Amino acid sequence: MVIAALAGGVGAARLLGGLVQVMPAPAITAVVNTGDDTVLHGLHISPDLDTVLYTLAGAINPETGWGLAGETWHMMEALERLGGVTWFNLGDRDLATHCYRTQRLGEGAPLHQVTVELAQAWGVEVRLVPVTDDLLRTRVQLVDGPEVAFQEYFVRLHHDVPVASVRFDGAEQAAPAPGVLEALTGADRVVVCPSNPVVSIGPLLAVPGIAECLAGRRDDVVAVSPIVAGAALKGPADHLLRELGHESSVVGVARWYAPWVGTLVIDHADAHLAGAIEAEGMRCLVTDTVMATPARAASLARAVLDGNS
Amino acid sequence: MVIAALAGGVGAARLLGGLVQVMPAPAITAVVNTGDDTVLHGLHISPDLDTVLYTLAGAINPETGWGLAGETWHMMEALERLGGVTWFNLGDRDLATHCYRTQRLGEGAPLHQVTVELAQAWGVEVRLVPVTDDLLRTRVQLVDGPEVAFQEYFVRLHHDVPVASVRFDGAEQAAPAPGVLEALTGADRVVVCPSNPVVSIGPLLAVPGIAECLAGRRDDVVAVSPIVAGAALKGPADHLLRELGHESSVVGVARWYAPWVGTLVIDHADAHLAGAIEAEGMRCLVTDTVMATPARAASLARAVLDGNS
Repeated sequence: MVIAALAGGVGAARLLGGLVQVMPAPAITAVVNTGDDTVLHGLHISPDLDTVLYTLAGAINPETGWGLAGETWHMMEALERLGGVTWFNLGDRDLATHCYRTQRLGEGAPLHQVTVELAQAWGVEVRLVPVTDDLLRTRVQLVDGPEVAFQEYFVRLHHDVPVASVRFDGAEQAAPAPGVLEALTGADRVVVCPSNPVVSIGPLLAVPGIAECLAGRRDDVVAVSPIVAGAALKGPADHLLRELGHESSVVGVARWYAPWVGTLVIDHADAHLAGAIEAEGMRCLVTDTVMATPARAASLARAVLDGNS
Repeated sequence: MVIAALAGGVGAARLLGGLVQVMPAPAITAVVNTGDDTVLHGLHISPDLDTVLYTLAGAINPETGWGLAGETWHMMEALERLGGVTWFNLGDRDLATHCYRTQRLGEGAPLHQVTVELAQAWGVEVRLVPVTDDLLRTRVQLVDGPEVAFQEYFVRLHHDVPVASVRFDGAEQAAPAPGVLEALTGADRVVVCPSNPVVSIGPLLAVPGIAECLAGRRDDVVAVSPIVAGAALKGPADHLLRELGHESSVVGVARWYAPWVGTLVIDHADAHLAGAIEAEGMRCLVTDTVMATPARAASLARAVLDGNS
């Protein structure tokens, strides 16, 4: 079986970590969000690509879900003494990734190529592909403030401020990175990882060609709900759904994904809502979706592949 | 007494460290070479400014003469594992300086303003000014190879390859940074630090207005020879002088500096050449110029200020 996955950050990384336990890693292509990429201190930072990479390399900090285990913070401590911009934490070893990426992009290498190189260096066999080599930037319009870059909303403001709207700067002009449409077309199944539907999967669907590709093979597309019992396991998905006029529930997720997704995987905690999901024209699969351990991630991955709970 | 100094890297930093022992630091303006600035990994690196800054802050690594004492190298070690560009060493704490500078330049702050901020953060009271806010890049034409950026010659190739010529890209269009000409005009004495005449002082003289300013007050300009007994104490000044057709001696330095410098300070080791220097139309001051300790740097500084040995 060949799989393509649409991936954001932590939740996606965990499901991919489950998938590689139950199928050959090279048969998985992860199409990763770059809408939350940012340039800070001149360094090109791709938070979702790095979270997926570090997780699959077994190097992620398991407590935070981002950054490297056993990291040191000497640069950040020095930057704080200088009065620099310190709201976005960059560990010393993690910095090497951003330095490498920035240097290679500066040399003219496209992001998908740089991503291949980083994955090889880390020994990651899942095919990681940024959704696009082009500029794609999630912008968040605050209710009580200006429009800000995604990381300002997510990290600097702790995603703790109401949002009026979200847009994906550059999406209309962006082309899918080489291999993205081929992976989505050629896969036996397309998995939408349990990532934020608005700001992690949203940017992927905004790149021309991707939503159309999924809609054309909707029956093969299975999404795992990032909302369990009305709440996001991590991050602001529940707030955002509500603030943007959607229901913060698996039913809200189902309505959001209905045009492109044939099957929604939900947690046992939401089993009573299976009928409401089916009423949206989707199949519903009920299983344990909370990936508290690698073993549970593997179980969820198996359920997603098998199509039954 | 108010002093302006033309400064390169290590030798200049040591003499400035001597000057602050014998006069008030705020009465010294150091005009620092930026011709060896480079962008690596997207980070704007100003090696001479940093060497002067760290030295005056008492934070320099005394063994290397560059970088910070007690530094860690976690980023570089990780970058090496990624197969990145590692010929230019960047310590973890040193990285904060480059991150700060790059971020501020990206926000639109001119380099001289960023330099003020860094000096304040480090508690350095000498007025550090980059020679220009504009692009100025020393380019080195190799005898057996291409033209390379200065740091490629100096660090990657260990300045161990013959040089055909040197030029200062951008110099003709560069303007002296705010305060530079004022400092050179208003100082009681202008000190040319014992830096490489070709690639450290050369870029300063190539910025329009600076050589003219010095030539107009040549009697007040005193240079310390970076060549002692025919050799450079550090770096490739002796090779470069020879390769570019000059004599690798204090007399070669005197001929190079004669249009702008009224007094050349040389080491006792070269006392026998004092007459040859005077024959070039310069005064000659003989003293100990090897700054092996801070006390010797202070002695040299005192001799430079007093004008006698």
